[in-house]
Amino acid sequence: MADKVHDHIVSSYQEELTSLKNQITKMGGIAEELLAHSFDALEKRDPELAAATIKDDSQIDALERDIEEQAIIMIARRQPVALDLRQIMAAIRISADLERIGDLGKNIAKRALAVADEHRPKHLMLGLRHMGELSLEQLKDVLDAYIERDADKAQRVWQRDEEIDSMYNSIFRELLTYMMEDPRNIGLCTHLLFGAKNIERVGDHATNIAETVYFLVHGETLPDERPKSDTTSSTAVDLPGAAE
Amino acid sequence: MADKVHDHIVSSYQEELTSLKNQITKMGGIAEELLAHSFDALEKRDPELAAATIKDDSQIDALERDIEEQAIIMIARRQPVALDLRQIMAAIRISADLERIGDLGKNIAKRALAVADEHRPKHLMLGLRHMGELSLEQLKDVLDAYIERDADKAQRVWQRDEEIDSMYNSIFRELLTYMMEDPRNIGLCTHLLFGAKNIERVGDHATNIAETVYFLVHGETLPDERPKSDTTSSTAVDLPGAAE
Repeated sequence: MADKVHDHIVSSYQEELTSLKNQITKMGGIAEELLAHSFDALEKRDPELAAATIKDDSQIDALERDIEEQAIIMIARRQPVALDLRQIMAAIRISADLERIGDLGKNIAKRALAVADEHRPKHLMLGLRHMGELSLEQLKDVLDAYIERDADKAQRVWQRDEEIDSMYNSIFRELLTYMMEDPRNIGLCTHLLFGAKNIERVGDHATNIAETVYFLVHGETLPDERPKSDTTSSTAVDLPGAAE
Repeated sequence: MADKVHDHIVSSYQEELTSLKNQITKMGGIAEELLAHSFDALEKRDPELAAATIKDDSQIDALERDIEEQAIIMIARRQPVALDLRQIMAAIRISADLERIGDLGKNIAKRALAVADEHRPKHLMLGLRHMGELSLEQLKDVLDAYIERDADKAQRVWQRDEEIDSMYNSIFRELLTYMMEDPRNIGLCTHLLFGAKNIERVGDHATNIAETVYFLVHGETLPDERPKSDTTSSTAVDLPGAAE
């Protein structure tokens, strides 16, 4: 009888852990979709899609609160250690990163609303589109790494963040060039600059999640310093026109 | 004897809660100082101060990890409910907001490095300076509200965030005007735009902390929707020159 009770407790504990994992997976799926929609809205200058995307962010916020609450109750009730504690902490951390990714998607959708009436040439947005695709791929891969508990895959995501950063740097310079070439581009390009910065930050959060997955699996942090090379804020802008 | 043991446990629990509160207070003080230094570095275009400020951010990161660890151990050991649980959760949340404020200060210091060699007129930065002062005041007031458990003071901080947001909107438009007037301003003004956005986000985190303090004291969330009016991302830029 005692054994049966014990079994029951253990199995319900496993169920709780599984439920937590499923919630994260669900939240990740919504964040991916929201982000993809925000990129579409910006590229197509589609105000309806942008408005719908902004509204969807509240789902992500609600999921974060649920996950945190569930995690706190589990820590208090189960007093987990080692891998179990890491699983719960990972859920808290990843949900916080996904919540911020949702916010970034919402911000991009707001920029899409702002530029809906712009008639500047579409080629100005090409760089941003590629950067968006890369960030979505990173998010997808790191969520797979979480679901499969695959630390190697997480580490690859972590290493690839440098690509997004260097893409951001070149887009930053490119957009500044367009602004200097023709002041009529300044309005749109300023919004695109902020959009690019938002995408770069999506990459940072994917990297955070990669670190969390690595720690979850191995119980120790990733060996090297994070690759980080947004140099637009630490190097002076030196473009034709800037020093004229 | 049993009573004595009980007293001992209770008092050490109170000590733990006090220690958590002291850690937050310390972290808040460092975040304030870091932010003030980053504004100074940007205004005076002082690369040494900027570099020192960037370095200081690691202290804040370390404190956040300590606070989170301490909080998790307390939840597991003490299984707190009601006010006690809210105190611990508040420490986790506020430390996360302070960590992000530290990151924002670091970003502003990086922008200061980037503009160290700029020789554009200093009046371009006046608006940013006022915005910085206001955000520092908000941070200081909300930390006082936390220390004094003063929900009314927290609510006033929360209401005042609109001022920072509207200041951001006018600086955004002002900087765009400078860019259109003279393309040589584009480099510096772009960095200042990002700086202004960072300061606006400091205000958001101060507002988050205000919400946490309110919840900590009353056990319920603030009655109204957060005031939020960064409209630069949701309204089209309509400036002289933009539609030429």
